Amino acid sequence: MNNTSSNIHIYIAAHAEQVETALRQTLPAAWDVPSSLRESMDYSLMAGGKRLRPIMVLAAAEALGGSLEAAMPIAIAIELVHTYSLVHDDLPAMDNDDYRRGKLTNHKVYGEAMAILAGDALLTHAFYSITQAHKKHGAQADRVLAITEELAVLAGARGMVGGQAADMLGEQGLTKLEELTYIHTHKTSDLIVFSLRAGGHIAGATDEQLEALSKFGHALGLAFQIQDDILDIIGDEKKLGKPVKSDEKQMKVTFPYFIGMEASEQRVHELTQQAKDALNHSTIANPDRLLQIADYLMKRDH
Amino acid sequence: MNNTSSNIHIYIAAHAEQVETALRQTLPAAWDVPSSLRESMDYSLMAGGKRLRPIMVLAAAEALGGSLEAAMPIAIAIELVHTYSLVHDDLPAMDNDDYRRGKLTNHKVYGEAMAILAGDALLTHAFYSITQAHKKHGAQADRVLAITEELAVLAGARGMVGGQAADMLGEQGLTKLEELTYIHTHKTSDLIVFSLRAGGHIAGATDEQLEALSKFGHALGLAFQIQDDILDIIGDEKKLGKPVKSDEKQMKVTFPYFIGMEASEQRVHELTQQAKDALNHSTIANPDRLLQIADYLMKRDH
Repeated sequence: MNNTSSNIHIYIAAHAEQVETALRQTLPAAWDVPSSLRESMDYSLMAGGKRLRPIMVLAAAEALGGSLEAAMPIAIAIELVHTYSLVHDDLPAMDNDDYRRGKLTNHKVYGEAMAILAGDALLTHAFYSITQAHKKHGAQADRVLAITEELAVLAGARGMVGGQAADMLGEQGLTKLEELTYIHTHKTSDLIVFSLRAGGHIAGATDEQLEALSKFGHALGLAFQIQDDILDIIGDEKKLGKPVKSDEKQMKVTFPYFIGMEASEQRVHELTQQAKDALNHSTIANPDRLLQIADYLMKRDH
Repeated sequence: MNNTSSNIHIYIAAHAEQVETALRQTLPAAWDVPSSLRESMDYSLMAGGKRLRPIMVLAAAEALGGSLEAAMPIAIAIELVHTYSLVHDDLPAMDNDDYRRGKLTNHKVYGEAMAILAGDALLTHAFYSITQAHKKHGAQADRVLAITEELAVLAGARGMVGGQAADMLGEQGLTKLEELTYIHTHKTSDLIVFSLRAGGHIAGATDEQLEALSKFGHALGLAFQIQDDILDIIGDEKKLGKPVKSDEKQMKVTFPYFIGMEASEQRVHELTQQAKDALNHSTIANPDRLLQIADYLMKRDH
């Protein structure tokens, strides 16, 4: 491990810890919420995970000299959305998964009705969290509204939910690589693009800088998902916390299925380079952490 | 039918028609959305319904001299939230209803997975719609953010979803009228309070006026739900579009169950009067339509 990669590990761990702390506080104990609903929400929210999306919000804000404090409610929002999507995706009517990250899935613990409601409440709470960037931390109202709109687009029918719907509809077998790319783009890249742009908005990014963050996020998200496809095949159960090839079992197709393992790995490298180029050709003053995150993700083994 | 009640019928019908038109346009054909997802969303969104919540947004805005145009995206948002809640409530894991308003429920037509995703997408789109009040119609950014926050609270874990969770948890039999009141308040009143306050925000309402709208909405929402309980028992199948006493069958309890039919009807009258008093004692300049809507709801037979 060289000095830079050591640094980025520390950077990621430190930011992940800040995110964990903020996540623990996002549903104040004083709020009047039925206890089973609160437990169900907390269970999935605090079930671990890499917290990559919130870290990207913070890193993008930092790259442009923005306030970490104002960026945190947005970081929390994207983790709330990511968590709700996992809770709903795991449902029997969807992927029907019993385990996630080595723990029982939400509906296995709290029942299907509560898992549906917890997902709904987590999604709704994400939009609450966004508003606090303005209300509590003084982020500009029109920027926070832009963030709200972008989350609604990128997590909605044209974004993540659309990707999930296409995934469900295509489960009987996809016929084209384009279909898989559509699914990966919307299920994965869209939330990463949101995270980066939202951090940019908080820091007052220009349109050109937002566009560079979009390009970075789009390529990085696709690389991340192809890497996931690869790891799903070569990874071992312990590291992933779920049975290896669980996707293959369900007849889902992956990038290696279409173009082979070696070409998939090549694609991850190309996309990562493409992502980095977008930042390097932009006016973003301090892109180093974002560039290091791109390399870190490419080299991860889980 | 006297002149006033005739007028309010025309007023409601005209506003409902405007809402229908706007609802038809809220998911532009040009948007790239998987077709089954779009159809599933459209199916429930355009499945009829009284459009009462959006009408209340518009009526509250008008009562304070606000712009109907700027209020419309908010009116659409609340109908999107109401619709998503019905789609998810009807799911097999929840109320397991096959019919709503005389039509097959969403999951009976599109399957459970698509119904879950359509609900998620409708909820997400509601927040998109809110942002358009600022972006397209010039509503003040800080007011629109306040509306966003209030929707997230009143439709979330502390609001509607909390009410639904309490309803699910209490299905084995409630022991107290207070529990039922909690459920009715959050499942029904909260979105009505939101609708009225949001219309107020668009019109630049003062804190005192917003508070009057909250009181009006809270009492009116409870009256509305008790009236629903009553109609569920005395109504006939054709008018309601679902089997009479379907709630009783599922061991759910209602206001008449606790305090009897006559006392329930009395309570509807008292709450309606309480609602009207809140407006009459406020500085809201033109409360007439809202007052008439309160009477209209009390007298409805479906």
